[in-house]
Amino acid sequence: MVDDVFYMKLALQEAFKALDKDEIPIGAIVVCGSKVIAKAHNLTETLCDASAHAEMQAFTAASNYLGSKYLKDCTLYVTLEPCAMCAGAAYWTQIDRVVFGAYDKKHINVDKKTLYHPKTQLVGGVLEDECASVISDYFKNKR
Amino acid sequence: MVDDVFYMKLALQEAFKALDKDEIPIGAIVVCGSKVIAKAHNLTETLCDASAHAEMQAFTAASNYLGSKYLKDCTLYVTLEPCAMCAGAAYWTQIDRVVFGAYDKKHINVDKKTLYHPKTQLVGGVLEDECASVISDYFKNKR
Repeated sequence: MVDDVFYMKLALQEAFKALDKDEIPIGAIVVCGSKVIAKAHNLTETLCDASAHAEMQAFTAASNYLGSKYLKDCTLYVTLEPCAMCAGAAYWTQIDRVVFGAYDKKHINVDKKTLYHPKTQLVGGVLEDECASVISDYFKNKR
Repeated sequence: MVDDVFYMKLALQEAFKALDKDEIPIGAIVVCGSKVIAKAHNLTETLCDASAHAEMQAFTAASNYLGSKYLKDCTLYVTLEPCAMCAGAAYWTQIDRVVFGAYDKKHINVDKKTLYHPKTQLVGGVLEDECASVISDYFKNKR
């Protein structure tokens, strides 16, 4: 749990990089063993690509680093609960753990837990307040 | 419906390109109005990326072509029913229509219909037999 907080802080740093680009501030990292092998942040506006979520880029970068489609012994840390697309991508990677910060309160009609691979452990609410406030502050400033 | 068959044949051509690369043969195209603006096929092995499904690449290419995250007036044609990841990606694009060939009989535990944007029309079973047999033949040859 101490480790989860440590790594979530790195994911939060990525969220702030997204904020600097006027993107919805969501960050993600992939850790293999204890090594950070991928860092990414939301780039949907910059890349003009609705699928350029932090998680998707982190998965692609981690697979590239490992030379494997499967993210064995890996954990995804992401500041917001993954959407259906990203949960579905996590399924294909068979990643060991997905740890997220803030809960997604917008898309609650879909039971996203069913989308993960059965062997993936899901943990929510790590640094929840910090992860949630960076996003809510962003939208407040947009109004 | 005649148009759907016409465009699905183009998606099938993409599936055969995947087959030539010893990839699971799934192809996709995106049509905007009546113009084909993206063609793609499954490249998960070639790119060593579990998210490199035909649909994901087709969405990214189509957005790049249109200069928009949103695929307005567009239809995705794909030879196999999209997985949760790809349905989730379709949600973000708000694409008008998703037309698929073969039904995915493997991942029936998830109600994928709920993952699409409410305004997306979903049509299945276009050239179903042709789309299914290219995949089943691939797996038969692997055994």
